[in-house]
Amino acid sequence: MCTFSELLMKRRSVREFEKREVPLSITEEIIKESCCAPSARNEQPWHFIIINNETMIKRLSDESKGVILEEIKKSPGSPLKKYEEMLRIEGFNVFWGAPTVVYIVGPESKGSLQVDCALAASYFMLSAASRGLGTCWVALGSCIEDPEIRKEIGLPDDYKIVAPIILGYPRVIPEPPPRENPKILKVVS
Amino acid sequence: MCTFSELLMKRRSVREFEKREVPLSITEEIIKESCCAPSARNEQPWHFIIINNETMIKRLSDESKGVILEEIKKSPGSPLKKYEEMLRIEGFNVFWGAPTVVYIVGPESKGSLQVDCALAASYFMLSAASRGLGTCWVALGSCIEDPEIRKEIGLPDDYKIVAPIILGYPRVIPEPPPRENPKILKVVS
Repeated sequence: MCTFSELLMKRRSVREFEKREVPLSITEEIIKESCCAPSARNEQPWHFIIINNETMIKRLSDESKGVILEEIKKSPGSPLKKYEEMLRIEGFNVFWGAPTVVYIVGPESKGSLQVDCALAASYFMLSAASRGLGTCWVALGSCIEDPEIRKEIGLPDDYKIVAPIILGYPRVIPEPPPRENPKILKVVS
Repeated sequence: MCTFSELLMKRRSVREFEKREVPLSITEEIIKESCCAPSARNEQPWHFIIINNETMIKRLSDESKGVILEEIKKSPGSPLKKYEEMLRIEGFNVFWGAPTVVYIVGPESKGSLQVDCALAASYFMLSAASRGLGTCWVALGSCIEDPEIRKEIGLPDDYKIVAPIILGYPRVIPEPPPRENPKILKVVS
């Protein structure tokens, strides 16, 4: 038990995990808490896919890397360019060896999807931290286009992956990266 | 002090406030905690504008209502259409009489702006709840186009308002609206 201020400091982006599975029931509890997030017009457009399978996690990593490398080839001015070298490393897994990946997804047509799923993702990461688990939002793992893989993970054609989150027991909890002072543009009083 | 699970239940969308100002120092503390949210590449693109002035809050409400009503006129098929009747009520203030409005904003050019600011907004709402304060993300208050008003509140031309959040001491804490069971599309194990 800790205050919210303490929990904020406990939630770090974790990229090194113990070789230890996360029980499905715990992932489900965290997802249940994520669904307490607010959403536009209480529409709760979020859906979840849980991947606990090492082989599938590797396939998803390879697929996402491939799609991103194609994009960089097409638009060399892309901000993704800076990841090219890392993505070209054969053994580099964008999911950092986490035992579980959770995709927060939803219908692309929903205007508020990005924001609603980000709110649920934030609850997810804090809920995990409150249970001693580590997470990281891994944007590099979101580019899944192959229809076969999409089908295997149950991702409908018209759904978009908003938040790919890795989940596991932290081996190393990193120090918080430096934060700028809050940028308050104006106080109108 | 409460667990995160308890805090989740305490954070409700509040739309009825006591006639009591929120001390600036408390709003600043909440903003400081909001800045502990993760962001893409740790870029922290969020900026904040604090409005404690009743007259300005009314002007912002009127401006946003006007812009939205114009949009509805131009595209009658817009999902905003269902708010038309409410927005036409002269005395309806989109900020529900809250003593404070905080805008979370940032440079429109930043691809991850929506998601990063939503993460900060989520921290904001939880941090406020942990202090007994009520909040609500009021999307209807985000349409501020008038250059004069934008200048008065210190909002740069190329910045976008992502999250308009009202803040105050709750007069009524509503029951949580019904939540659907978590929609888990698939577990791949």
